[in-house]
Amino acid sequence: MTDRLDESLELLSSVVCFGGQQNQYQHRSAVLDCTMQFSVFLPPQAEQHPVPALYWLSGLTCTDQNFATKAGAQRVAAELGMALIMPDTSPRGEGVPDDEAGAYDFGLGAGFYVNATEVPWATHYRMYDYILTELPELLESAMPLTELRAISGHSMGGHGALMLALRNAGRFVSASAFSPIVNPCECPWGQKAFSGYLGSDETSWKAYDSVELIRSGATPLPLLVDQGTADNFLDEQLKTDRLITACEVMNFSAEIRYQPGYDHSYYFIASFIESHLRFHAKHLGLR
Amino acid sequence: MTDRLDESLELLSSVVCFGGQQNQYQHRSAVLDCTMQFSVFLPPQAEQHPVPALYWLSGLTCTDQNFATKAGAQRVAAELGMALIMPDTSPRGEGVPDDEAGAYDFGLGAGFYVNATEVPWATHYRMYDYILTELPELLESAMPLTELRAISGHSMGGHGALMLALRNAGRFVSASAFSPIVNPCECPWGQKAFSGYLGSDETSWKAYDSVELIRSGATPLPLLVDQGTADNFLDEQLKTDRLITACEVMNFSAEIRYQPGYDHSYYFIASFIESHLRFHAKHLGLR
Repeated sequence: MTDRLDESLELLSSVVCFGGQQNQYQHRSAVLDCTMQFSVFLPPQAEQHPVPALYWLSGLTCTDQNFATKAGAQRVAAELGMALIMPDTSPRGEGVPDDEAGAYDFGLGAGFYVNATEVPWATHYRMYDYILTELPELLESAMPLTELRAISGHSMGGHGALMLALRNAGRFVSASAFSPIVNPCECPWGQKAFSGYLGSDETSWKAYDSVELIRSGATPLPLLVDQGTADNFLDEQLKTDRLITACEVMNFSAEIRYQPGYDHSYYFIASFIESHLRFHAKHLGLR
Repeated sequence: MTDRLDESLELLSSVVCFGGQQNQYQHRSAVLDCTMQFSVFLPPQAEQHPVPALYWLSGLTCTDQNFATKAGAQRVAAELGMALIMPDTSPRGEGVPDDEAGAYDFGLGAGFYVNATEVPWATHYRMYDYILTELPELLESAMPLTELRAISGHSMGGHGALMLALRNAGRFVSASAFSPIVNPCECPWGQKAFSGYLGSDETSWKAYDSVELIRSGATPLPLLVDQGTADNFLDEQLKTDRLITACEVMNFSAEIRYQPGYDHSYYFIASFIESHLRFHAKHLGLR
């Protein structure tokens, strides 16, 4: 099942799913200075013509596999003709430093989609550049993809999706998130990650904070957020109300929905992923 | 999140999913003489009135979690008003013997849905009685379920679903399977399991073999099977052609479909689970 696509991209596995291809790849990332794995779902339409792509950024502790196996997104993506791009959540492998205490919320599996500036993280932990530039360039040259991109994610990945889209006008046609960390400068997960990766100067943190970006006049784009009301992390870490307030203050249009009774799990994501894919499809020119 | 429903059933977790409840329970099984966990999806309709149930039997190495997290069945079950019952695949816990070499295809995670007769398995490994009688009686007394049942499963669980339905006319209104072991008496997985659990007298094996049951004149019931053509286990273990031949010889009506390019994974199950749920819904009087 191993197939070398070109010098830089190795196909690890390929499985038929809803008439499309669920593939896992490995490549040497120059940006992250390590070997990375990621997954791609190519819908059946990609056999006929290039298709637009939804990037999915996962949350703490996840790999490229969680969304691939648990969200049920391929069904809708196959219908709509949308590729799904599922990167890992941090650099990995030999030589990549991890949190010394093995924390779940810093180091491996917890890259927070920033370009680290602090020792020893700065060498490998550059997920911002990886997701924004290196991975799309690689994929759009090697696969039947258009240059139309949307972005979504969960929790830490919801932070990543909103932040990347807000900082880079025109790079993504639309952004959405499940249970995002909207204001990492002001919650324990974000403060731990940013002080570790970016250092103690909190002004450098704001460029990676969705609420701060909106407050600073980020260019609007179509934006959808779902947040479960039974999410144990809502009050301390996610603080959705701060995103609502920032949008109101700045007259920034966004659809932010509280979903009664839902928690932080993939059961929540599975329940609303169809709604998110159809939202992005509209902006990607599908349907 | 822990709640004692009655003396015998403990709620371990409850999560909202597609407007219904994805619950995990624990109970003391008299039949298996151990503590068992299982999962149940209750669709939103169960808040109004009792609903019929689809029993899902999982394959080798699985627990109650695989189908719950990977198949995407809750979406369709919530629409149709069908409960999903997800048992474990063997007895578990202290005092329950396992294969000494830790094999994946015998012992824990590999109960094969038989009542073992051999030492040391006979005490606990009685999954046939557990699925057929103890679990439905428990659930139908404790939850808003009707006594209408359908049954489905994957691989070893596909064997279990077909075999249990074929042996017990009227107990299940319909049966279906993904990648089932249709003729365990004649494949390595089945021969290893049956000789271990049932002993060397192969005549005792036939009562647990779907092909043998059909050949012996089992009462017909609506039956659907999906089998991927890229399934690595097809030729040596699954032998779908033997089910087709037995049905033809006995004029036993069944829909048996080869699905081109699909493998043995949950990506295959996810791709066709909607079709199976709608098949069962028809026979369960839904829609």
